[in-house]
Amino acid sequence: MERVFDEELQFLREKLLRMAVSVEDALSLAIEALKDQKEEPARKVLKNEDNINLLDIEVDEICMRLLALRQPMAGDLRFITSAMKISNDLERMGDLAVNVAELALELARLPLLKPLIDIPRMARMAQAMVRDSINAFINRDEALARDVCIRDDEVDALDDQILRELLTFMMEDPHTVRRAVALILVSRNLERLADHATNIGEDVIYMVKGKTIKHHIENRRISGPPETGT
Amino acid sequence: MERVFDEELQFLREKLLRMAVSVEDALSLAIEALKDQKEEPARKVLKNEDNINLLDIEVDEICMRLLALRQPMAGDLRFITSAMKISNDLERMGDLAVNVAELALELARLPLLKPLIDIPRMARMAQAMVRDSINAFINRDEALARDVCIRDDEVDALDDQILRELLTFMMEDPHTVRRAVALILVSRNLERLADHATNIGEDVIYMVKGKTIKHHIENRRISGPPETGT
Repeated sequence: MERVFDEELQFLREKLLRMAVSVEDALSLAIEALKDQKEEPARKVLKNEDNINLLDIEVDEICMRLLALRQPMAGDLRFITSAMKISNDLERMGDLAVNVAELALELARLPLLKPLIDIPRMARMAQAMVRDSINAFINRDEALARDVCIRDDEVDALDDQILRELLTFMMEDPHTVRRAVALILVSRNLERLADHATNIGEDVIYMVKGKTIKHHIENRRISGPPETGT
Repeated sequence: MERVFDEELQFLREKLLRMAVSVEDALSLAIEALKDQKEEPARKVLKNEDNINLLDIEVDEICMRLLALRQPMAGDLRFITSAMKISNDLERMGDLAVNVAELALELARLPLLKPLIDIPRMARMAQAMVRDSINAFINRDEALARDVCIRDDEVDALDDQILRELLTFMMEDPHTVRRAVALILVSRNLERLADHATNIGEDVIYMVKGKTIKHHIENRRISGPPETGT
């Protein structure tokens, strides 16, 4: 019986890992579409979205079954409730990657505003955070989970920098407005994606330590454009 | 024993209701600050944020205790796991209200771009969705939950309309760029807030019916600016 339970937990880990890989892939494709102004990779993201959603439903069902039939205690209970939350975060990350893909599709039809450097960098940072947060969960690695939470500040700083630069573009040339706003929204979506990875990191720390650090590690950021007068 | 369990579930309902009321209040204050260019209500939102976060932690702890000690089955199990998810959504709604308050603080120091009509309307729609989604949860009201999910489309349409209008402002006058971008971000935060209410609606339907409608009712929207050439 115990062995069956362990197998079920292992199955759960694998599902979450598959979700994380799908999110990373979606993000790679969306950024490729954005950077190279190609529609094909963006369309792939839209086509694959259902996979992540289906995995989320599957994880939820596995967790409910484990809670109902196994009546787990302490560590296992925390593992299962964390898995439900993490699956939820991964599913929303999938939605955010879809948003980026849709923005890429729109931008593919317009002249390139400028070669993109910072946005792909931000996407790579977010991807690494997704990967590391899930690895932290699977290996119950508290140090890695804390590292993910800390890296969120770098992503936020990059988001602010991108915003500042794009505001300058728009002020200097109104023809750039539509494209610059689309890129600001891309940057915001990536920033939120990194936030979800941070949530996972916090859940992992809670799971390992048995106490919550939510709302403590959070270094709240100013979410508006920079302030330098009108 | 059964009676004690019922009392605990009732306690859980009350906590979630308090969270929802706090989110609604935060949103009212943030929009008041934005509309009337006043800093005081926005600062109140920042000050009250911790209350919502603490309630989220409390709800999580109550749920974990109920799962561990009561080993609930079927309907009660679904109620408790739904409560955990809903608390998570409410906590993030609190974060979004804080984002709006921060944007309001920034805009309070700049000349008003235009009298705000659509954004306060959008905020009222989002507030009603928060209230109704929690009432649907407490009263196990599937019809109300579905209604919340449907109203999300109206909020999305309003968000798109606001974006279009603000793009026009920026194209016509680069001096409006900073303020218009801040208002676009306000609108996005409200749209996401409504998304979270929709998630709660979906959770309620799942709880009542015992099957998931997530990812089915969702009418995915284009998240970028409107497309009308450069």
